[in-house]
Amino acid sequence: MTNTKLQAFIPLFYLVWSDDLLTKKEFATLQQFIHSQDWLSTEEKQELLSKTSISNPPSRQDITDWKNKIEQTIQEHTAVKSIFEIVLALSQNDATIQNLETSFVQLENDLGILGEEALSNFRTKSETLTVTHHTDANFDVQKLTSLLDGEQATIINKVKAVISQPEFRLETTTDINFYRQKVYYWCKILADENLGNMAYPKQYGGGENIADYFSIMETLSYHDLSLVIKFGVQFGLWGMSVQSLGTEKHYAKYLKDIGSLKLPGCFAMTETHHGSNVKGLETTATYDHETQTFTIHTPHPKAQKEYIGNAALHGQMATVFAKLMIAGQDYGVNAFIVPLRDENGVVLKGITIGDCGHKMGLNGVDNGTIRFDNMVIPKENMLDRFASVNEEGAFESPIPSDNRRFFTMLGTLVGGRIGIPRSALAAAKTGLTIAIKYSDQRRQFGPEGGSEVPILNYRMHQRRLLIPLAKTYAVHFALQYLTQRFLKKTETEMQEIEALAAGLKSYSTWSTTAILQECREACGGKGYLSENRIDALKNDTEIYTTFEGDNTVLMQLVAKNRLSEFRKAFGEMGSFGIINYVYENAKSVIAEKNPIAIRKTDEAHLLDSEFHLQAFEHREKTILASAAKRIKKLVDDGLDAYDAFNVVQHQMIDVAEAYLDRVVLEQFQIAIAAVKEPDTKQVLNRLCQLYALSQIEKNKAWYLEDNYMEAVKTKAIRKMVNQLCWDIRPDAVALVNAFAIPESCLGELV
Amino acid sequence: MTNTKLQAFIPLFYLVWSDDLLTKKEFATLQQFIHSQDWLSTEEKQELLSKTSISNPPSRQDITDWKNKIEQTIQEHTAVKSIFEIVLALSQNDATIQNLETSFVQLENDLGILGEEALSNFRTKSETLTVTHHTDANFDVQKLTSLLDGEQATIINKVKAVISQPEFRLETTTDINFYRQKVYYWCKILADENLGNMAYPKQYGGGENIADYFSIMETLSYHDLSLVIKFGVQFGLWGMSVQSLGTEKHYAKYLKDIGSLKLPGCFAMTETHHGSNVKGLETTATYDHETQTFTIHTPHPKAQKEYIGNAALHGQMATVFAKLMIAGQDYGVNAFIVPLRDENGVVLKGITIGDCGHKMGLNGVDNGTIRFDNMVIPKENMLDRFASVNEEGAFESPIPSDNRRFFTMLGTLVGGRIGIPRSALAAAKTGLTIAIKYSDQRRQFGPEGGSEVPILNYRMHQRRLLIPLAKTYAVHFALQYLTQRFLKKTETEMQEIEALAAGLKSYSTWSTTAILQECREACGGKGYLSENRIDALKNDTEIYTTFEGDNTVLMQLVAKNRLSEFRKAFGEMGSFGIINYVYENAKSVIAEKNPIAIRKTDEAHLLDSEFHLQAFEHREKTILASAAKRIKKLVDDGLDAYDAFNVVQHQMIDVAEAYLDRVVLEQFQIAIAAVKEPDTKQVLNRLCQLYALSQIEKNKAWYLEDNYMEAVKTKAIRKMVNQLCWDIRPDAVALVNAFAIPESCLGELV
Repeated sequence: MTNTKLQAFIPLFYLVWSDDLLTKKEFATLQQFIHSQDWLSTEEKQELLSKTSISNPPSRQDITDWKNKIEQTIQEHTAVKSIFEIVLALSQNDATIQNLETSFVQLENDLGILGEEALSNFRTKSETLTVTHHTDANFDVQKLTSLLDGEQATIINKVKAVISQPEFRLETTTDINFYRQKVYYWCKILADENLGNMAYPKQYGGGENIADYFSIMETLSYHDLSLVIKFGVQFGLWGMSVQSLGTEKHYAKYLKDIGSLKLPGCFAMTETHHGSNVKGLETTATYDHETQTFTIHTPHPKAQKEYIGNAALHGQMATVFAKLMIAGQDYGVNAFIVPLRDENGVVLKGITIGDCGHKMGLNGVDNGTIRFDNMVIPKENMLDRFASVNEEGAFESPIPSDNRRFFTMLGTLVGGRIGIPRSALAAAKTGLTIAIKYSDQRRQFGPEGGSEVPILNYRMHQRRLLIPLAKTYAVHFALQYLTQRFLKKTETEMQEIEALAAGLKSYSTWSTTAILQECREACGGKGYLSENRIDALKNDTEIYTTFEGDNTVLMQLVAKNRLSEFRKAFGEMGSFGIINYVYENAKSVIAEKNPIAIRKTDEAHLLDSEFHLQAFEHREKTILASAAKRIKKLVDDGLDAYDAFNVVQHQMIDVAEAYLDRVVLEQFQIAIAAVKEPDTKQVLNRLCQLYALSQIEKNKAWYLEDNYMEAVKTKAIRKMVNQLCWDIRPDAVALVNAFAIPESCLGELV
Repeated sequence: MTNTKLQAFIPLFYLVWSDDLLTKKEFATLQQFIHSQDWLSTEEKQELLSKTSISNPPSRQDITDWKNKIEQTIQEHTAVKSIFEIVLALSQNDATIQNLETSFVQLENDLGILGEEALSNFRTKSETLTVTHHTDANFDVQKLTSLLDGEQATIINKVKAVISQPEFRLETTTDINFYRQKVYYWCKILADENLGNMAYPKQYGGGENIADYFSIMETLSYHDLSLVIKFGVQFGLWGMSVQSLGTEKHYAKYLKDIGSLKLPGCFAMTETHHGSNVKGLETTATYDHETQTFTIHTPHPKAQKEYIGNAALHGQMATVFAKLMIAGQDYGVNAFIVPLRDENGVVLKGITIGDCGHKMGLNGVDNGTIRFDNMVIPKENMLDRFASVNEEGAFESPIPSDNRRFFTMLGTLVGGRIGIPRSALAAAKTGLTIAIKYSDQRRQFGPEGGSEVPILNYRMHQRRLLIPLAKTYAVHFALQYLTQRFLKKTETEMQEIEALAAGLKSYSTWSTTAILQECREACGGKGYLSENRIDALKNDTEIYTTFEGDNTVLMQLVAKNRLSEFRKAFGEMGSFGIINYVYENAKSVIAEKNPIAIRKTDEAHLLDSEFHLQAFEHREKTILASAAKRIKKLVDDGLDAYDAFNVVQHQMIDVAEAYLDRVVLEQFQIAIAAVKEPDTKQVLNRLCQLYALSQIEKNKAWYLEDNYMEAVKTKAIRKMVNQLCWDIRPDAVALVNAFAIPESCLGELV
């Protein structure tokens, strides 16, 4: 094509022959177009048509020449923005061609060519924003680590040092027996380091430091999670059940040996038929006044204890939860110390142990079943802090209601609902460290001719990993707050703290499950190889959403607590109560919900922490009031209350979630307010903004339904979430480095 | 309390002493209340106050008596609806008490008592809706099974019979070596049954039945997924790559032995540094005209082949994708048959095999790495359907563009993107069968005094399992449609079918990942035990979202295809194009978006299939146009196109999702329209309604932002989703029974 006019067709020829999406139909379209150009001579048409014959395609050389011409044109005319501008340039601004813009553009469309993308493939793209974005920390990593660790820095560093030792090299065996023994051996080392008994009273050899105990659980969770759970079963569940439910005589007899792991034990609560509904346990403890004994018995196979950690192999004793029977009367669930094995590990008569076998994860923990066949234990083995049998053989308790006593007992065990979400948090931190560092290094795709791009520069990848990163920071501060509340608890606050613990247990463990899913996918095939750790993190934490209370059940407890608090605050949802509530709520909402506010989209407003908290609070309050009203209405309309609570079960989860969202945001903001160092403050602020806005984005349907925001605002929030991801991306690697997870825990990928 | 007036306090006393949520503060509230009642004498006040002293609680007998009195009252006055009505009855309708309603109710509120729930705990609830709801199939299960299996019923039943044999007892070993050999042994049996070569031409011993081949893949997926993948690697990837990319000489030489598993082989495409971006592969195949050979070489360690199934142990040959180099010139990626091991399994010189080791799942598949050290192969080993080296040693191809040829080659391999989503579908069916049958049997919690309730009667549980059940049915019909389109494909349709396959691969595999997550949680601790199968289903399918193309990358390909189609239909998004589009769209939307329609909430409308499809189509079209406009605007504003596509990446996923949602709904509706049998039709219709409305609910933020629906309508849809779950629940077990999954594949739980 020496005729410059005809050169106008080069871009189209090149695109149809190199694009994988075009078929016969499109070639026909191009041929028609050529035919219809009256300004072309018959010979010219023939020449052009010869380049569009599927049966006689151009040579590779033709295609290469065309490509070179196009690239050259772009280099000479850097401002070109469309395919037609190249067409024009190649024709040397031919006057005829100039008048054909509409039909050329139409042809481009008819061929379905994505002009922008096609054009972009010709440029050397080393300088585009996507390509050049990179890691560049804007704050001091160590300062942030210190802030995260706080007063527990010393114990955290001690635990990190222990798990970084060669003995703690992560286990890769698939042999359950070997793995279980390895985990037991690790626990022994930790016990020898006085880490297991950290929460016990000093007089029984303990460290009397509950705050440190929780930090030990969390830090160990960077390592093997079977170890954490085995550790938690022995020193937390077994030991703390003795400490919380027993009295002095039990402490003196058992605590020291539990803390040193001389006396491995179990926490035998769950039964095959009763997990979440612990009140329905069927194991019996029948008192015999003559022999001063209890007989522990499993009435039928489905009442066996199941999933009990430490039971299958190592446990020598167990805290067993059973219905206390005295003279034929049922006194509800109480706790008893029951021996399972002798010192040599031989299972005792009256005890039958089963093995839960291979599990999805946590295979270093020896979960088992326990059946009791009229196992007789001495009277002193009843853990008698809240109930006992007196000298006359009669039941005694400072708490007369069985129901209330039962929940009081459970309340003392709330520590487990702090340890587990903190362990889940650590697992999320590990997963994000692996995935973010990998995504910063891994390059895939890129502009034609340029180098490939780190996948963390892609928007979807940023959303997948950086929104979870922000949430993980948020949950960190919320769990710090929960721990502080627990450590400083007073009796009046217990209900609130129990609800908060139940709620944050669900919030953190669900968050971890979702985050590790993203991490696995974000690491592609590498994320599937066991050597890269995401496998174990994901499978081990999978059960966190179930044990220590099924999350869905716990969320309903949280919601009931909120409803109860709501009634105290605003009274019966009769017409009076509603007016009262609406008035109370209106005072704060009137400014937030005005026609300007619901459409406000300026950056300062969208990033304003006060706006975030107000929006969270508004959602929390409104959902709560709405659920209360709905239950009332269903019952008024004649539905049985039991059914009414089932009908609103879905809303109950929302009630709990909105409450937890608000607590998490509030505590994140409070923590940031206390930070003095400006760079640290700034990066945390951004994370907090991202957490807040991404949660609003997630719940935007609710905000739109409620008319708290209009579409223009929710759309602006989506953009801002994307922008914040982009802004945080350079700091992302530094932000995971601030978790300061030992190298030995991060697998082979980073 | 013989004084009947005082009996009015019994309900409050009982509640404060038995509720686990009340603390000192609430007791003080109750005491204050008693003090403030002027109508009580000092002695009466004393008597009442004596029942509220924490230091001197009532006896167990007191509490039991109170409870009995309350229960008796309720039995005598079945219409009571509030705590106060019991108060009144107990006081024998005392006139003073009658006037105290407001203050008693206020007290109840101040104590935070959830009256409805408290009241419900006193009733015998054997008759509530939640308790009595149960399984009761309303259709003929076998007829539905026949409908699902269709023309492939014979082969499906054959495969089910094979995998139900004792040799196919599911493997529980954690020993990778043993497991890999077992899976190989299973594959051998399947090959002997002529199941592996089902898709190959008859002249090479095959069954020449691609439809049956896909059904074999899907049905095998009820069994062990390692087996499916090993089977798919051998007969699908390895065999079909020879068939699709090779020519007659290769068929004659290899196909029979591949189909009989005499010649185990690999599909060696992915490299460590290049997975999704296959075009960037770095392995080279250098032609030497003198010796008439190619030299296959791995230029650096990160260019090794990775994750290659059949490589670590069994593969004797591989289809290797490598850049063809002739006389120093790069001719793009082409495919070559390269021997790896001799017949005795000894690795050949020039080949280095690595083992990917333990993975999150699919441990019965021997994935490995392959490195080539100047491995020389004869010229005839080039799979030369689309490109070859001629007698003069020059490159030849009917497709001159390397880019286009590469995508044409890949296009012939699209079958994998049908097999995988169908395998994922089967895994979802298995998981749902286990979880739904378990939830129908598993009872937990229930009204006080009544029996416990099957957990599938709880709303949250229904939402967790029945919405996924509806989606699984929807995906079933969509994948049937995809398979039919593929079987009857013409060249013009190939782009559309490739996009559809890429999209449905993502849609189905993501769906399965999410569904199995719900199944695991819905089965609680039981779902965590390996013996119950969800472990394996979840971990084995986890990689489905990554292999055969990372889902996020595939969804962008789908979106680009949609954008390209859009441009063909509506032209350049200049002002003219937009007007044109708005006009086109307005014609159909004008009726749907009128002020009445956007608020319409009557049941007939909400359940109307036409409304569903219109809503899906509207979303699809609008999102697509919006993405096109946005890209155009970003480029017009000066952003580099490469960056512009990154900015809208999030929207691109939405474009693809909305498209796939519409296809899935449309095909579900079309399939139902063809059903004649009324009971089957009805139950499928309900599932389709649930699928449609739950997807709208999921996307309601979009509908609200677009003003296609107002809040009143989205809220009504949420209620209808819940109602449909409730209505489908009695059929749920029958609906999973209709999948007719062999008992031996369902684990120990059901």
